[in-house]
Amino acid sequence: MALIDISGIFPPLPTAFDSNENLLPEKISLNIKRLSQYDLAGFLILGSNGEQVMLSDSEKIAAIAAAREALPEGRLLLAGTGCQSTRETISLTRAAATEGAHAVLVINPSYYKGNMNQAELVRHYFDVADASPVPVLVYNMPANTGVDMTSRMIIAMAEHPNIVGLKESGGNVVKMGEVLGNVKPGFRVLAGGAGFLLPSLAMGASGGILASANIAPGHCLEIYKAFLAGDITRARDMQHSIIPLNAAVTARWGVPALKAAMDHLGLYGGHVRRPLLPLSEEMKNQLVEMIGEKELKLYKHN
Amino acid sequence: MALIDISGIFPPLPTAFDSNENLLPEKISLNIKRLSQYDLAGFLILGSNGEQVMLSDSEKIAAIAAAREALPEGRLLLAGTGCQSTRETISLTRAAATEGAHAVLVINPSYYKGNMNQAELVRHYFDVADASPVPVLVYNMPANTGVDMTSRMIIAMAEHPNIVGLKESGGNVVKMGEVLGNVKPGFRVLAGGAGFLLPSLAMGASGGILASANIAPGHCLEIYKAFLAGDITRARDMQHSIIPLNAAVTARWGVPALKAAMDHLGLYGGHVRRPLLPLSEEMKNQLVEMIGEKELKLYKHN
Amino acid sequence: MALIDISGIFPPLPTAFDSNENLLPEKISLNIKRLSQYDLAGFLILGSNGEQVMLSDSEKIAAIAAAREALPEGRLLLAGTGCQSTRETISLTRAAATEGAHAVLVINPSYYKGNMNQAELVRHYFDVADASPVPVLVYNMPANTGVDMTSRMIIAMAEHPNIVGLKESGGNVVKMGEVLGNVKPGFRVLAGGAGFLLPSLAMGASGGILASANIAPGHCLEIYKAFLAGDITRARDMQHSIIPLNAAVTARWGVPALKAAMDHLGLYGGHVRRPLLPLSEEMKNQLVEMIGEKELKLYKHN
Amino acid sequence: MALIDISGIFPPLPTAFDSNENLLPEKISLNIKRLSQYDLAGFLILGSNGEQVMLSDSEKIAAIAAAREALPEGRLLLAGTGCQSTRETISLTRAAATEGAHAVLVINPSYYKGNMNQAELVRHYFDVADASPVPVLVYNMPANTGVDMTSRMIIAMAEHPNIVGLKESGGNVVKMGEVLGNVKPGFRVLAGGAGFLLPSLAMGASGGILASANIAPGHCLEIYKAFLAGDITRARDMQHSIIPLNAAVTARWGVPALKAAMDHLGLYGGHVRRPLLPLSEEMKNQLVEMIGEKELKLYKHN
Repeated sequence: MALIDISGIFPPLPTAFDSNENLLPEKISLNIKRLSQYDLAGFLILGSNGEQVMLSDSEKIAAIAAAREALPEGRLLLAGTGCQSTRETISLTRAAATEGAHAVLVINPSYYKGNMNQAELVRHYFDVADASPVPVLVYNMPANTGVDMTSRMIIAMAEHPNIVGLKESGGNVVKMGEVLGNVKPGFRVLAGGAGFLLPSLAMGASGGILASANIAPGHCLEIYKAFLAGDITRARDMQHSIIPLNAAVTARWGVPALKAAMDHLGLYGGHVRRPLLPLSEEMKNQLVEMIGEKELKLYKHN
Repeated sequence: MALIDISGIFPPLPTAFDSNENLLPEKISLNIKRLSQYDLAGFLILGSNGEQVMLSDSEKIAAIAAAREALPEGRLLLAGTGCQSTRETISLTRAAATEGAHAVLVINPSYYKGNMNQAELVRHYFDVADASPVPVLVYNMPANTGVDMTSRMIIAMAEHPNIVGLKESGGNVVKMGEVLGNVKPGFRVLAGGAGFLLPSLAMGASGGILASANIAPGHCLEIYKAFLAGDITRARDMQHSIIPLNAAVTARWGVPALKAAMDHLGLYGGHVRRPLLPLSEEMKNQLVEMIGEKELKLYKHN
Repeated sequence: MALIDISGIFPPLPTAFDSNENLLPEKISLNIKRLSQYDLAGFLILGSNGEQVMLSDSEKIAAIAAAREALPEGRLLLAGTGCQSTRETISLTRAAATEGAHAVLVINPSYYKGNMNQAELVRHYFDVADASPVPVLVYNMPANTGVDMTSRMIIAMAEHPNIVGLKESGGNVVKMGEVLGNVKPGFRVLAGGAGFLLPSLAMGASGGILASANIAPGHCLEIYKAFLAGDITRARDMQHSIIPLNAAVTARWGVPALKAAMDHLGLYGGHVRRPLLPLSEEMKNQLVEMIGEKELKLYKHN
Repeated sequence: MALIDISGIFPPLPTAFDSNENLLPEKISLNIKRLSQYDLAGFLILGSNGEQVMLSDSEKIAAIAAAREALPEGRLLLAGTGCQSTRETISLTRAAATEGAHAVLVINPSYYKGNMNQAELVRHYFDVADASPVPVLVYNMPANTGVDMTSRMIIAMAEHPNIVGLKESGGNVVKMGEVLGNVKPGFRVLAGGAGFLLPSLAMGASGGILASANIAPGHCLEIYKAFLAGDITRARDMQHSIIPLNAAVTARWGVPALKAAMDHLGLYGGHVRRPLLPLSEEMKNQLVEMIGEKELKLYKHN
């Protein structure tokens, strides 16, 4: 089942909206086409940067369909299908597979934090993996969920043959090492943030699903390739220089900044859905300056 | 618009499922009928105890409709309509009003924690309150959302004429006092947990929306009434004695324990939806013992 | 041994320093004399507001001695003697008793947070209580220690005959209720902050050790006395109106603000020890305005 | 002033006590002598593993003196001199330099968490660095202090000519990168835990101060040397295999486990000071098994 190998660099695509917050599937396609000029392994649709939790069921399907249609040969499509209930997660997972996603990325339920212990979460992932027609990646994103899945949980989940990897967005490299030291061969760990890509690779990660790969794909790929080529010095320089811009579009300002940066770079960023609000002009200026400073002009599309 | 007065004791009803996790609207009605033997001010449908985040849109409507139909004259129906996006929250709020809810209880969006600051949250509540045909209560539940709305946020929200109160489930009595000292007259604060009902009333709260009011309504009402009657000693004794059972059905074991206790007491608790799992037999025995010990037998239905 | 009854309102005195950060014992005496115009139950020396963690052993002894000497007949002197090791805590506790402290307030060790579990903390308090010539109060202050002692810990500690009470500074009124419902008669709970004095009293607390009692002793006493007299409405109004000033001298700006307020009111505040820094002029102006607004002029000394 | 280069692997020595919790300086010397068989860059005395917060002033001096005396030529002695006040930190720093420490490691004050902001902490480190006869390393240890110093703080501190490095024990590799990208050349970052040594080196760290270097010095050195030699695969395998034992002697069981492991390996571990308690027999057995499993026998002393 898990004959695909999930490694390399993946951008988690934002979901495109117009000024009335309505879905624009064609802009998702546009972004995929432009970004596919780079040697990216594929794309994630409906991740945290995709405002998945704000979309209706039909919008989710439409977004996956648009991404799949635009996907070039040889690239992978991952779809974020985690919901608060097991049943809804299974339902969306099946729909994503039907629409052509090659694998699903499943964030953990988190509303009932006090109950999200080992038994509940392992059972949840096993139930989803049993029902999923495609391989499942576990997605740990404590900054958004408020739940930080432990290595013990993930090691237990990895025993399921259809659970093939982990996206770790908490930046916990110790956890990555502990997981990799205790799971089946072929289980993949992917860094969930460009700020810790190189340390993750050193610890054994196979790549990353990185917000910054939407706006600095060449930069992210260079860290990855320099590391694979054994050029740690080059990888480290590139790693240090991506941190400020990456922080701006993630922990500091989040999706509104990612979309603003994409607009600036000739991709489609567009509007966010409320309660998210657009960046102020002042923040936008700071962001643009940061993009300029880091000489990301080369990633601009002409 | 806000001619209703939201005070007194409200149980936040669990949502009834069968063994296949399918909705049983008639069991919601049954629980309302039985609990209405007590002098409760009304009911909350689709709160945290109602597994709201796990329900589909149509299930949410069906649950509200079932509750409204069973509601006796003179009781209020509150419906939990908070979702992750402003647009979905507005849509569910309107539907709830159409189904006959007297007011809505709106939990804050929380997925994009880093962006859920003053501007975003006040704008969100203002947009919802503008669109809502019925009064809006703000719902702060940091243990589940991972976001603890500040008094400064709530004081700003209270300036909207259609925002009439706060359910504070974090147990922060200082915040309650700070809010009550700085908002329009008639703005209501409701305790979100039976463990801190009496201190909340002392601080100026008007009542509570209390998981324990599903399984110990008489006990909760007695705290409330003794306080109103000036009998602090009686209120305090009852307050102390509710804490262990209340902790069991909230912070310690949560909704699975609440449903098990309801089953034990002759109400309909029934099944939880996964990822929630039912209590183990050992936990159930501890729970039953706790119910017995606290002599809640009088609240049993015969 | 525990024939003293620790109830009522206690100010936790700041420790007086000159502009070179040297101890001024006579200014501690001065503050006690002035504040003793009010019907305070006594004083705490070397609490969190007393910069205890910044004092040398000999300074601690000197501060206790100065306080004891100035203490009027009929008032109690509590001394904060908690240190990171059990042996140092015992040593300081004995010295405090020798200097005439009537009871000691022992904050928990907290540096080795991962080890500060039930066994370690109960053993620590038992060892201290065994060695102490005077009664021991447990002091829970999670905002400073980063460790929040549980009700289960405190209930276990309360079994020791020489452990006679708890100062709860986390504002957790549920914990207060849980403790009071499960300990020996006569065990006292004291509110650790004026922001939650009334709710604590409602839950069964016997008084408070309150930073604000240094700068608004009459106001704090009025909450306490109105509550005892059954006048909840009066107590609540006074409770609401103390919150902003209290927040300023505690959570918001801390000891530097408390000292600035004391200076403004004719007591001796004086200098803080670094790393604490004095309030900026702008903050001082805001603070003075807050004092004025709340009409605390009556607490000024002339 | 900062002509020493702080790189390589350093064990943070535990402080030796007898069964009455009295200091045994000669056992500190013994451990240094035995561990000096390995190619360690030096030793830290009075770090978190050294129970520094539990020692009296004179014990601190005695421990530094014992370490300095035993120190072989060519190794560095770092001393942990951070206290809660600036004045006490300066005093201990000067004493440590007098006793022969080559540099000091200064943990931040943390008791007044609400006040430990940019201005206070930068001022504190500047004051200490101004007064220190030897170079100063900043020590960030959020698991113990409850304060996580930001990269912005550390970048500001690094502007002082006598502040030469950072020990980062929070495992935040992004922060390490952000710091290294924004400070003067020669500023050193040291990993504060063996669990994240390799990722830290990849990010640009110069070595580590590692509890595990007391009990698995060869293992830690092998990660370091394999990395320097460009053998990432070897470094990674060794990195993965150190994680469980390292977790046992740090986050899981802490200093009592470190001391028990040292006893097992033929070093002097000895007793802990209360409130720390010794490991249970069951924990000790688990620990010994872990040591065995990981084939650390080669680090045993014969």
